[in-house]
Amino acid sequence: MPEPAALALIDGQPAALPLDDRGLAYGDGLFETVLLFRGRPVWWDAHLERLARGAAALGIAAPDRRVWQDDLAALLAGPAPLAERQVLKLILTRGSSGRGYAPDRSAAARRIVQLLPAPADRPDWRRDGIVLRWCALRLAEQPRLAGLKHLNRLEQVLARAEWDDPAIAEGLLCRQDGQPVSATAANLFVVAGRRLLTPPVDRCGVAGVCRRFLLAQPEASECELDRQAVLQADELFLCNSLRGILPVARLGERVFSRGPFTRALMARLAAAEPAFAFECAG
Amino acid sequence: MPEPAALALIDGQPAALPLDDRGLAYGDGLFETVLLFRGRPVWWDAHLERLARGAAALGIAAPDRRVWQDDLAALLAGPAPLAERQVLKLILTRGSSGRGYAPDRSAAARRIVQLLPAPADRPDWRRDGIVLRWCALRLAEQPRLAGLKHLNRLEQVLARAEWDDPAIAEGLLCRQDGQPVSATAANLFVVAGRRLLTPPVDRCGVAGVCRRFLLAQPEASECELDRQAVLQADELFLCNSLRGILPVARLGERVFSRGPFTRALMARLAAAEPAFAFECAG
Repeated sequence: MPEPAALALIDGQPAALPLDDRGLAYGDGLFETVLLFRGRPVWWDAHLERLARGAAALGIAAPDRRVWQDDLAALLAGPAPLAERQVLKLILTRGSSGRGYAPDRSAAARRIVQLLPAPADRPDWRRDGIVLRWCALRLAEQPRLAGLKHLNRLEQVLARAEWDDPAIAEGLLCRQDGQPVSATAANLFVVAGRRLLTPPVDRCGVAGVCRRFLLAQPEASECELDRQAVLQADELFLCNSLRGILPVARLGERVFSRGPFTRALMARLAAAEPAFAFECAG
Repeated sequence: MPEPAALALIDGQPAALPLDDRGLAYGDGLFETVLLFRGRPVWWDAHLERLARGAAALGIAAPDRRVWQDDLAALLAGPAPLAERQVLKLILTRGSSGRGYAPDRSAAARRIVQLLPAPADRPDWRRDGIVLRWCALRLAEQPRLAGLKHLNRLEQVLARAEWDDPAIAEGLLCRQDGQPVSATAANLFVVAGRRLLTPPVDRCGVAGVCRRFLLAQPEASECELDRQAVLQADELFLCNSLRGILPVARLGERVFSRGPFTRALMARLAAAEPAFAFECAG
Protein backbone atom coordinates (compact mmCIF):
# COMPACT_ATOMS: atom_id res chain seq x y z
CA MET A 1 0.00 0.00 0.00
CA PRO A 2 1.49 3.37 -0.94
CA GLU A 3 1.51 5.92 1.85
CA PRO A 4 -0.67 8.98 1.28
CA ALA A 5 1.23 11.85 -0.33
CA ALA A 6 3.07 13.88 2.28
CA LEU A 7 2.04 17.45 2.84
CA ALA A 8 4.52 19.67 1.01
CA LEU A 9 5.06 23.28 -0.05
CA ILE A 10 7.41 24.76 -2.63
CA ASP A 11 8.31 28.38 -1.90
CA GLY A 12 5.27 28.46 0.35
CA GLN A 13 2.81 27.12 -2.21
CA PRO A 14 1.40 23.65 -2.98
CA ALA A 15 3.11 23.80 -6.40
CA ALA A 16 4.94 21.32 -8.63
CA LEU A 17 8.73 21.28 -8.80
CA PRO A 18 10.05 22.80 -12.04
CA LEU A 19 12.10 20.13 -13.81
CA ASP A 20 14.98 22.55 -14.32
CA ASP A 21 15.53 22.66 -10.57
CA ARG A 22 19.22 22.21 -9.82
CA GLY A 23 18.47 20.13 -6.76
CA LEU A 24 17.18 17.43 -9.11
CA ALA A 25 19.72 18.02 -11.88
CA TYR A 26 22.91 18.10 -9.78
CA GLY A 27 21.99 17.62 -6.13
CA ASP A 28 22.77 21.35 -5.98
CA GLY A 29 21.33 22.12 -2.58
CA LEU A 30 21.03 21.22 1.08
CA PHE A 31 18.54 19.58 3.40
CA GLU A 32 17.61 19.29 7.05
CA THR A 33 15.42 16.74 8.79
CA VAL A 34 14.00 18.31 11.92
CA LEU A 35 12.16 16.42 14.65
CA LEU A 36 8.75 17.96 15.33
CA PHE A 37 7.75 17.13 18.90
CA ARG A 38 4.10 18.02 19.53
CA GLY A 39 4.39 20.46 16.62
CA ARG A 40 7.55 22.14 17.96
CA PRO A 41 10.77 21.92 15.89
CA VAL A 42 13.49 20.47 18.11
CA TRP A 43 16.94 22.14 17.87
CA TRP A 44 15.39 24.57 15.36
CA ASP A 45 18.15 27.17 15.72
CA ALA A 46 20.91 24.60 15.24
CA HIS A 47 19.25 23.20 12.09
CA LEU A 48 18.77 26.65 10.57
CA GLU A 49 22.33 27.64 11.48
CA ARG A 50 23.73 24.55 9.76
CA LEU A 51 21.57 25.22 6.72
CA ALA A 52 22.83 28.81 6.59
CA ARG A 53 26.47 27.66 6.91
CA GLY A 54 25.94 25.15 4.11
CA ALA A 55 24.27 27.75 1.92
CA ALA A 56 27.20 30.12 2.47
CA ALA A 57 29.66 27.35 1.54
CA LEU A 58 27.76 26.58 -1.68
CA GLY A 59 27.02 30.21 -2.54
CA ILE A 60 23.23 29.81 -2.23
CA ALA A 61 21.23 32.66 -0.66
CA ALA A 62 19.59 31.21 2.48
CA PRO A 63 16.13 32.54 3.36
CA ASP A 64 15.51 34.19 6.72
CA ARG A 65 14.50 32.15 9.70
CA ARG A 66 11.10 33.83 9.51
CA VAL A 67 10.47 32.36 6.04
CA TRP A 68 11.06 28.80 7.26
CA GLN A 69 8.94 29.58 10.32
CA ASP A 70 6.06 30.67 8.06
CA ASP A 71 6.45 27.51 5.95
CA LEU A 72 6.23 25.37 9.08
CA ALA A 73 3.17 27.26 10.32
CA ALA A 74 1.47 26.75 6.95
CA LEU A 75 2.24 23.00 7.02
CA LEU A 76 0.92 22.62 10.55
CA ALA A 77 -2.25 24.56 9.65
CA GLY A 78 -2.93 21.98 6.92
CA PRO A 79 -5.32 19.07 7.09
CA ALA A 80 -2.82 16.47 8.35
CA PRO A 81 -3.51 15.35 11.95
CA LEU A 82 -0.78 16.36 14.39
CA ALA A 83 1.23 13.41 15.68
CA GLU A 84 3.40 13.56 18.81
CA ARG A 85 6.47 12.94 16.65
CA GLN A 86 6.81 13.99 13.01
CA VAL A 87 9.64 14.99 10.74
CA LEU A 88 9.90 18.36 9.06
CA LYS A 89 12.13 18.04 6.02
CA LEU A 90 13.59 21.24 4.59
CA ILE A 91 15.28 21.31 1.18
CA LEU A 92 17.02 24.41 -0.14
CA THR A 93 18.13 24.22 -3.78
CA ARG A 94 19.97 26.74 -5.96
CA GLY A 95 16.69 27.07 -7.89
CA SER A 96 16.29 26.84 -11.63
CA SER A 97 18.79 27.39 -14.41
CA GLY A 98 19.44 26.40 -17.97
CA ARG A 99 21.37 23.20 -18.65
CA GLY A 100 24.99 23.20 -17.54
CA TYR A 101 26.87 23.49 -14.27
CA ALA A 102 27.28 27.28 -14.35
CA PRO A 103 24.86 28.69 -11.79
CA ASP A 104 22.47 31.41 -12.91
CA ARG A 105 23.48 34.10 -10.42
CA SER A 106 20.18 35.95 -10.87
CA ALA A 107 18.10 32.86 -9.99
CA ALA A 108 16.42 32.69 -6.61
CA ALA A 109 17.01 29.74 -4.30
CA ARG A 110 14.03 27.40 -3.88
CA ARG A 111 12.53 26.07 -0.63
CA ILE A 112 10.78 22.72 -0.37
CA VAL A 113 9.23 21.77 2.98
CA GLN A 114 7.56 18.47 3.75
CA LEU A 115 5.82 16.98 6.77
CA LEU A 116 6.73 13.29 7.09
CA PRO A 117 6.20 10.44 9.57
CA ALA A 118 8.80 10.02 12.33
CA PRO A 119 11.19 7.06 11.92
CA ALA A 120 9.77 3.77 13.19
CA ASP A 121 12.35 2.86 15.83
CA ARG A 122 12.14 -0.45 17.60
CA PRO A 123 11.32 0.19 21.26
CA ASP A 124 14.17 -2.09 22.44
CA TRP A 125 16.84 -0.06 20.62
CA ARG A 126 17.24 2.49 23.39
CA ARG A 127 17.04 -0.10 26.19
CA ASP A 128 19.17 -2.91 24.73
CA GLY A 129 21.19 -1.10 22.09
CA ILE A 130 21.38 -1.55 18.33
CA VAL A 131 23.36 -3.87 16.12
CA LEU A 132 25.86 -2.08 13.91
CA ARG A 133 27.88 -3.39 10.95
CA TRP A 134 30.96 -2.22 9.06
CA CYS A 135 30.14 -0.95 5.56
CA ALA A 136 32.41 -1.94 2.68
CA LEU A 137 32.00 1.40 0.90
CA ARG A 138 34.60 3.97 1.90
CA LEU A 139 33.75 7.66 1.93
CA ALA A 140 35.48 9.95 -0.56
CA GLU A 141 37.27 12.96 0.92
CA GLN A 142 36.07 16.37 -0.24
CA PRO A 143 36.94 19.12 2.24
CA ARG A 144 34.80 21.64 0.31
CA LEU A 145 31.66 19.59 1.07
CA ALA A 146 32.63 17.89 4.34
CA GLY A 147 30.35 18.60 7.28
CA LEU A 148 27.52 19.93 5.09
CA LYS A 149 24.14 18.24 4.80
CA HIS A 150 24.05 18.61 1.02
CA LEU A 151 21.93 16.70 -1.50
CA ASN A 152 24.78 14.56 -2.94
CA ARG A 153 24.09 11.39 -0.95
CA LEU A 154 24.82 8.52 -3.32
CA GLU A 155 27.54 7.22 -1.01
CA GLN A 156 25.07 6.91 1.85
CA VAL A 157 22.51 5.26 -0.46
CA LEU A 158 25.05 2.68 -1.67
CA ALA A 159 26.28 2.03 1.86
CA ARG A 160 22.72 1.59 3.21
CA ALA A 161 21.97 -0.81 0.34
CA GLU A 162 24.74 -3.14 1.58
CA TRP A 163 22.38 -4.88 4.02
CA ASP A 164 18.72 -5.86 4.18
CA ASP A 165 18.60 -7.57 7.58
CA PRO A 166 16.16 -5.55 9.71
CA ALA A 167 18.03 -6.69 12.84
CA ILE A 168 20.94 -4.46 11.78
CA ALA A 169 20.05 -0.86 12.51
CA GLU A 170 23.01 0.98 11.02
CA GLY A 171 26.33 0.67 9.20
CA LEU A 172 29.65 2.30 10.03
CA LEU A 173 31.52 4.12 7.26
CA CYS A 174 35.26 4.66 7.03
CA ARG A 175 37.27 7.11 4.96
CA GLN A 176 39.45 5.97 2.07
CA ASP A 177 42.34 5.67 4.58
CA GLY A 178 40.28 3.29 6.73
CA GLN A 179 39.52 5.66 9.62
CA PRO A 180 35.92 5.39 10.90
CA VAL A 181 33.82 8.55 10.37
CA SER A 182 30.12 7.98 11.03
CA ALA A 183 27.12 5.74 10.36
CA THR A 184 25.08 6.21 7.18
CA ALA A 185 22.60 8.54 8.90
CA ALA A 186 24.06 9.17 12.35
CA ASN A 187 27.26 10.34 14.00
CA LEU A 188 29.49 8.04 16.03
CA PHE A 189 30.65 8.56 19.62
CA VAL A 190 33.13 6.47 21.55
CA VAL A 191 33.45 6.39 25.33
CA ALA A 192 37.05 5.80 26.36
CA GLY A 193 37.53 6.04 30.13
CA ARG A 194 36.12 9.43 31.15
CA ARG A 195 36.42 10.80 27.62
CA LEU A 196 33.74 11.12 24.97
CA LEU A 197 35.24 11.14 21.45
CA THR A 198 33.84 11.59 17.95
CA PRO A 199 35.72 11.65 14.62
CA PRO A 200 36.22 15.02 12.92
CA VAL A 201 34.08 15.71 9.84
CA ASP A 202 36.45 18.04 8.01
CA ARG A 203 37.26 15.57 5.18
CA CYS A 204 33.91 13.78 4.86
CA GLY A 205 30.80 13.13 6.95
CA VAL A 206 28.07 15.41 8.25
CA ALA A 207 28.32 17.76 11.24
CA GLY A 208 25.19 16.46 12.97
CA VAL A 209 22.96 18.59 15.17
CA CYS A 210 22.84 16.05 18.01
CA ARG A 211 26.63 15.66 17.63
CA ARG A 212 26.86 19.40 18.23
CA PHE A 213 24.84 19.08 21.45
CA LEU A 214 27.10 16.28 22.63
CA LEU A 215 30.34 18.07 21.69
CA ALA A 216 29.26 20.86 24.04
CA GLN A 217 29.46 18.40 26.97
CA PRO A 218 32.59 18.87 29.13
CA GLU A 219 33.92 15.34 28.51
CA ALA A 220 33.59 15.55 24.72
CA SER A 221 36.07 16.33 21.97
CA GLU A 222 36.80 15.55 18.33
CA CYS A 223 39.48 12.93 17.86
CA GLU A 224 40.76 10.82 14.98
CA LEU A 225 39.82 7.23 15.79
CA ASP A 226 41.02 4.07 14.08
CA ARG A 227 39.04 0.83 13.91
CA GLN A 228 40.93 -0.55 16.88
CA ALA A 229 39.98 2.45 19.01
CA VAL A 230 36.33 1.92 18.11
CA LEU A 231 36.45 -1.81 18.87
CA GLN A 232 38.27 -1.21 22.17
CA ALA A 233 35.86 1.50 23.34
CA ASP A 234 34.22 1.05 26.74
CA GLU A 235 30.90 2.13 25.26
CA LEU A 236 29.74 3.11 21.80
CA PHE A 237 26.69 5.01 20.60
CA LEU A 238 25.23 6.71 17.54
CA CYS A 239 23.27 9.94 17.54
CA ASN A 240 21.18 12.06 15.25
CA SER A 241 18.62 14.80 15.63
CA LEU A 242 15.60 12.54 15.00
CA ARG A 243 16.57 9.69 17.31
CA GLY A 244 18.80 11.29 19.92
CA ILE A 245 21.27 8.75 21.37
CA LEU A 246 21.18 5.11 20.25
CA PRO A 247 23.50 2.87 22.31
CA VAL A 248 25.37 0.22 20.32
CA ALA A 249 25.01 -3.36 21.60
CA ARG A 250 27.13 -5.02 18.93
CA LEU A 251 29.52 -4.04 16.14
CA GLY A 252 30.45 -7.05 14.03
CA GLU A 253 31.68 -9.61 16.59
CA ARG A 254 32.29 -7.13 19.38
CA VAL A 255 29.56 -6.90 22.04
CA PHE A 256 29.14 -3.70 24.04
CA SER A 257 27.08 -3.11 27.14
CA ARG A 258 25.00 0.04 27.43
CA GLY A 259 27.31 1.43 30.10
CA PRO A 260 26.89 4.14 32.73
CA PHE A 261 28.39 6.94 30.62
CA THR A 262 25.90 6.47 27.78
CA ARG A 263 23.02 6.21 30.28
CA ALA A 264 24.14 9.45 31.92
CA LEU A 265 24.31 11.22 28.57
CA MET A 266 20.85 9.98 27.61
CA ALA A 267 19.55 11.40 30.88
CA ARG A 268 21.30 14.73 30.23
CA LEU A 269 19.85 14.84 26.73
CA ALA A 270 16.35 14.06 28.06
CA ALA A 271 16.70 16.83 30.65
CA ALA A 272 17.81 19.33 27.99
CA GLU A 273 15.19 18.34 25.43
CA PRO A 274 11.88 16.68 26.46
CA ALA A 275 11.50 15.10 23.00
CA PHE A 276 14.27 12.68 24.02
CA ALA A 277 12.80 11.74 27.41
CA PHE A 278 11.91 8.20 26.36
CA GLU A 279 10.60 5.89 29.06
CA CYS A 280 13.37 3.37 28.55
CA ALA A 281 16.12 5.98 28.49
CA GLY A 282 16.78 6.15 32.25
CA MET B 1 13.00 37.15 -19.66
CA PRO B 2 12.55 33.57 -18.48
CA GLU B 3 12.83 30.97 -21.21
CA PRO B 4 9.61 29.10 -22.01
CA ALA B 5 9.24 25.90 -20.03
CA ALA B 6 11.07 23.05 -21.71
CA LEU B 7 9.05 20.17 -23.06
CA ALA B 8 9.31 17.33 -20.58
CA LEU B 9 7.78 13.96 -19.75
CA ILE B 10 7.90 11.92 -16.56
CA ASP B 11 7.45 8.19 -17.18
CA GLY B 12 6.01 9.15 -20.55
CA GLN B 13 3.47 11.63 -19.21
CA PRO B 14 3.45 15.44 -18.80
CA ALA B 15 3.20 14.95 -15.02
CA ALA B 16 4.68 16.65 -11.97
CA LEU B 17 7.65 15.15 -10.13
CA PRO B 18 6.62 13.56 -6.81
CA LEU B 19 8.57 15.30 -4.05
CA ASP B 20 9.62 11.98 -2.55
CA ASP B 21 11.69 11.27 -5.67
CA ARG B 22 15.13 10.08 -4.63
CA GLY B 23 16.78 11.96 -7.48
CA LEU B 24 15.82 15.17 -5.70
CA ALA B 25 16.35 13.86 -2.17
CA TYR B 26 19.79 12.27 -2.63
CA GLY B 27 20.89 12.71 -6.23
CA ASP B 28 20.03 8.99 -6.39
CA GLY B 29 20.07 8.55 -10.14
CA LEU B 30 21.84 9.11 -13.44
CA PHE B 31 21.58 11.39 -16.44
CA GLU B 32 22.57 11.65 -20.09
CA THR B 33 22.67 14.69 -22.33
CA VAL B 34 22.28 13.55 -25.92
CA LEU B 35 22.81 15.73 -28.98
CA LEU B 36 19.77 15.69 -31.25
CA PHE B 37 20.89 16.49 -34.79
CA ARG B 38 17.91 17.11 -37.07
CA GLY B 39 15.85 15.09 -34.60
CA ARG B 40 18.25 12.13 -34.54
CA PRO B 41 19.97 11.21 -31.25
CA VAL B 42 23.73 11.17 -31.86
CA TRP B 43 25.66 8.25 -30.28
CA TRP B 44 22.33 6.95 -28.97
CA ASP B 45 23.61 3.42 -28.35
CA ALA B 46 26.65 4.65 -26.44
CA HIS B 47 24.50 6.92 -24.25
CA LEU B 48 22.01 4.16 -23.45
CA GLU B 49 24.83 1.70 -22.77
CA ARG B 50 26.49 4.10 -20.31
CA LEU B 51 23.13 4.70 -18.63
CA ALA B 52 22.58 0.93 -18.32
CA ARG B 53 26.09 0.44 -16.87
CA GLY B 54 25.46 3.21 -14.35
CA ALA B 55 22.08 1.77 -13.42
CA ALA B 56 23.68 -1.64 -12.84
CA ALA B 57 26.36 -0.05 -10.65
CA LEU B 58 23.74 1.76 -8.55
CA GLY B 59 21.27 -1.13 -8.49
CA ILE B 60 18.57 0.76 -10.40
CA ALA B 61 16.48 -1.14 -12.97
CA ALA B 62 17.18 0.53 -16.35
CA PRO B 63 14.28 0.64 -18.81
CA ASP B 64 14.61 -0.95 -22.25
CA ARG B 65 15.97 1.01 -25.14
CA ARG B 66 12.48 0.95 -26.67
CA VAL B 67 11.05 2.88 -23.70
CA TRP B 68 13.53 5.72 -24.16
CA GLN B 69 12.89 5.60 -27.88
CA ASP B 70 9.15 6.03 -27.28
CA ASP B 71 9.83 8.96 -24.90
CA LEU B 72 11.93 10.65 -27.56
CA ALA B 73 9.27 10.10 -30.22
CA ALA B 74 6.62 11.60 -27.92
CA LEU B 75 8.81 14.66 -27.25
CA LEU B 76 9.50 15.18 -30.95
CA ALA B 77 5.78 14.83 -31.76
CA GLY B 78 5.08 17.70 -29.36
CA PRO B 79 4.44 21.34 -30.27
CA ALA B 80 8.07 22.53 -30.01
CA PRO B 81 9.60 23.46 -33.39
CA LEU B 82 12.43 21.17 -34.46
CA ALA B 83 15.82 22.87 -34.43
CA GLU B 84 18.87 21.53 -36.26
CA ARG B 85 20.61 21.03 -32.90
CA GLN B 86 18.84 20.32 -29.66
CA VAL B 87 19.65 18.49 -26.45
CA LEU B 88 17.72 15.49 -25.19
CA LYS B 89 18.27 15.16 -21.46
CA LEU B 90 17.48 11.81 -19.87
CA ILE B 91 17.28 11.40 -16.10
CA LEU B 92 16.79 8.02 -14.46
CA THR B 93 16.13 8.07 -10.71
CA ARG B 94 15.58 5.28 -8.22
CA GLY B 95 11.99 6.52 -7.98
CA SER B 96 10.09 7.29 -4.80
CA SER B 97 10.63 6.02 -1.29
CA GLY B 98 9.96 7.02 2.25
CA ARG B 99 12.50 9.20 4.07
CA GLY B 100 15.87 7.58 4.70
CA TYR B 101 18.71 6.22 2.60
CA ALA B 102 17.42 2.63 2.46
CA PRO B 103 16.06 2.07 -1.05
CA ASP B 104 12.53 0.72 -1.40
CA ARG B 105 13.34 -2.39 -3.43
CA SER B 106 9.76 -2.65 -4.69
CA ALA B 107 9.77 0.92 -6.08
CA ALA B 108 10.02 1.43 -9.83
CA ALA B 109 12.72 3.61 -11.32
CA ARG B 110 11.52 6.93 -12.77
CA ARG B 111 12.33 8.42 -16.19
CA ILE B 112 12.43 12.15 -16.85
CA VAL B 113 13.07 13.30 -20.43
CA GLN B 114 13.46 16.90 -21.51
CA LEU B 115 14.04 18.67 -24.82
CA LEU B 116 16.43 21.60 -24.32
CA PRO B 117 18.29 24.13 -26.47
CA ALA B 118 21.75 23.17 -27.72
CA PRO B 119 24.69 24.88 -25.99
CA ALA B 120 25.49 28.32 -27.41
CA ASP B 121 29.09 27.80 -28.52
CA ARG B 122 31.08 30.72 -29.86
CA PRO B 123 31.81 30.09 -33.57
CA ASP B 124 35.52 30.85 -33.09
CA TRP B 125 35.98 28.10 -30.49
CA ARG B 126 36.49 25.34 -33.05
CA ARG B 127 38.63 27.49 -35.33
CA ASP B 128 40.85 29.31 -32.83
CA GLY B 129 40.52 27.10 -29.76
CA ILE B 130 39.19 27.81 -26.29
CA VAL B 131 40.73 29.32 -23.19
CA LEU B 132 41.00 26.89 -20.29
CA ARG B 133 41.85 27.55 -16.64
CA TRP B 134 42.96 25.40 -13.71
CA CYS B 135 40.23 24.95 -11.09
CA ALA B 136 41.16 25.20 -7.43
CA LEU B 137 38.68 22.53 -6.36
CA ARG B 138 40.12 19.02 -6.37
CA LEU B 139 37.93 16.03 -7.15
CA ALA B 140 37.27 13.50 -4.41
CA GLU B 141 38.08 9.89 -5.22
CA GLN B 142 35.22 7.42 -5.07
CA PRO B 143 35.88 4.31 -7.18
CA ARG B 144 32.28 3.12 -6.68
CA LEU B 145 30.96 6.19 -8.54
CA ALA B 146 33.90 7.00 -10.84
CA GLY B 147 33.09 7.01 -14.55
CA LEU B 148 29.31 7.18 -13.99
CA LYS B 149 27.20 10.13 -15.06
CA HIS B 150 25.28 10.24 -11.78
CA LEU B 151 23.27 13.08 -10.28
CA ASN B 152 25.79 13.99 -7.53
CA ARG B 153 27.43 16.94 -9.26
CA LEU B 154 28.14 19.48 -6.54
CA GLU B 155 31.88 19.30 -7.25
CA GLN B 156 31.31 20.31 -10.87
CA VAL B 157 28.94 23.09 -9.77
CA LEU B 158 31.47 24.49 -7.30
CA ALA B 159 34.29 24.23 -9.84
CA ARG B 160 32.25 25.96 -12.56
CA ALA B 161 31.36 28.72 -10.10
CA GLU B 162 35.08 29.57 -9.72
CA TRP B 163 35.01 31.87 -12.74
CA ASP B 164 32.56 34.26 -14.42
CA ASP B 165 34.70 35.51 -17.32
CA PRO B 166 32.86 34.46 -20.52
CA ALA B 167 36.22 34.41 -22.34
CA ILE B 168 37.14 31.30 -20.34
CA ALA B 169 35.25 28.32 -21.76
CA GLU B 170 36.20 25.60 -19.31
CA GLY B 171 38.16 24.69 -16.18
CA LEU B 172 40.48 21.76 -15.62
CA LEU B 173 39.99 19.61 -12.52
CA CYS B 174 42.64 17.62 -10.70
CA ARG B 175 42.31 14.76 -8.22
CA GLN B 176 43.22 15.18 -4.56
CA ASP B 177 46.75 14.01 -5.48
CA GLY B 178 47.06 16.80 -8.05
CA GLN B 179 46.76 14.68 -11.23
CA PRO B 180 44.58 16.30 -13.94
CA VAL B 181 41.37 14.35 -14.71
CA SER B 182 38.96 16.33 -16.88
CA ALA B 183 37.21 19.65 -17.39
CA THR B 184 33.97 20.39 -15.51
CA ALA B 185 31.80 19.12 -18.40
CA ALA B 186 34.25 17.61 -20.88
CA ASN B 187 37.05 15.06 -21.04
CA LEU B 188 40.67 16.01 -21.63
CA PHE B 189 42.97 14.69 -24.36
CA VAL B 190 46.67 15.36 -24.74
CA VAL B 191 48.64 14.94 -27.97
CA ALA B 192 52.21 13.87 -27.23
CA GLY B 193 54.16 13.07 -30.39
CA ARG B 194 52.10 10.48 -32.26
CA ARG B 195 50.19 9.46 -29.14
CA LEU B 196 46.75 10.56 -28.00
CA LEU B 197 46.36 10.29 -24.22
CA THR B 198 43.52 10.81 -21.76
CA PRO B 199 43.50 10.32 -17.98
CA PRO B 200 41.74 7.24 -16.59
CA VAL B 201 38.38 7.81 -14.85
CA ASP B 202 38.49 4.91 -12.41
CA ARG B 203 38.89 7.09 -9.30
CA CYS B 204 36.84 10.13 -10.31
CA GLY B 205 35.57 11.80 -13.48
CA VAL B 206 33.04 10.73 -16.09
CA ALA B 207 33.58 8.20 -18.89
CA GLY B 208 32.40 10.48 -21.69
CA VAL B 209 30.73 9.25 -24.86
CA CYS B 210 32.95 11.32 -27.16
CA ARG B 211 35.95 10.16 -25.10
CA ARG B 212 34.86 6.60 -25.91
CA PHE B 213 34.81 7.38 -29.65
CA LEU B 214 38.29 8.86 -29.41
CA LEU B 215 39.70 6.02 -27.32
CA ALA B 216 38.74 3.68 -30.18
CA GLN B 217 41.23 5.52 -32.44
CA PRO B 218 44.48 3.59 -33.00
CA GLU B 219 46.72 6.31 -31.50
CA ALA B 220 44.68 6.63 -28.30
CA SER B 221 45.11 5.18 -24.83
CA GLU B 222 44.39 5.96 -21.19
CA CYS B 223 47.41 7.27 -19.32
CA GLU B 224 48.01 8.95 -15.96
CA LEU B 225 49.11 12.51 -16.73
CA ASP B 226 50.60 15.05 -14.35
CA ARG B 227 50.29 18.82 -14.75
CA GLN B 228 53.68 18.98 -16.40
CA ALA B 229 52.65 16.44 -19.05
CA VAL B 230 49.56 18.52 -19.81
CA LEU B 231 51.54 21.76 -20.04
CA GLN B 232 54.20 20.15 -22.23
CA ALA B 233 51.69 18.57 -24.63
CA ASP B 234 52.07 19.30 -28.33
CA GLU B 235 48.33 19.84 -28.62
CA LEU B 236 45.47 19.79 -26.14
CA PHE B 237 41.75 19.45 -26.61
CA LEU B 238 38.50 18.84 -24.73
CA CYS B 239 35.60 16.73 -25.92
CA ASN B 240 32.05 15.89 -25.04
CA SER B 241 29.05 14.44 -26.79
CA LEU B 242 27.30 17.79 -27.35
CA ARG B 243 30.29 19.72 -28.66
CA GLY B 244 32.55 17.11 -30.17
CA ILE B 245 36.20 18.23 -30.10
CA LEU B 246 37.15 21.68 -28.77
CA PRO B 247 40.83 22.53 -29.35
CA VAL B 248 42.52 24.36 -26.46
CA ALA B 249 44.29 27.61 -27.38
CA ARG B 250 45.45 28.52 -23.91
CA LEU B 251 45.70 26.92 -20.46
CA GLY B 252 46.74 29.47 -17.86
CA GLU B 253 49.94 31.02 -19.29
CA ARG B 254 50.63 28.25 -21.78
CA VAL B 255 49.55 28.89 -25.38
CA PHE B 256 48.79 25.96 -27.70
CA SER B 257 48.31 25.97 -31.45
CA ARG B 258 45.49 23.93 -32.96
CA GLY B 259 47.92 21.47 -34.45
CA PRO B 260 47.62 18.91 -37.24
CA PHE B 261 46.74 15.98 -34.98
CA THR B 262 43.68 17.72 -33.52
CA ARG B 263 42.62 18.88 -37.00
CA ALA B 264 42.89 15.32 -38.29
CA LEU B 265 40.82 13.99 -35.40
CA MET B 266 38.14 16.65 -35.97
CA ALA B 267 37.97 15.56 -39.60
CA ARG B 268 37.72 11.90 -38.59
CA LEU B 269 34.95 12.77 -36.11
CA ALA B 270 33.08 14.75 -38.79
CA ALA B 271 33.36 11.84 -41.21
CA ALA B 272 32.03 9.41 -38.62
CA GLU B 273 29.22 11.64 -37.40
CA PRO B 274 27.74 14.40 -39.62
CA ALA B 275 26.54 16.34 -36.55
CA PHE B 276 30.20 17.30 -35.97
CA ALA B 277 30.91 18.39 -39.56
CA PHE B 278 31.23 22.07 -38.65
CA GLU B 279 32.35 24.42 -41.41
CA CYS B 280 35.36 25.61 -39.46
CA ALA B 281 36.45 22.13 -38.44
CA GLY B 282 38.54 21.33 -41.50
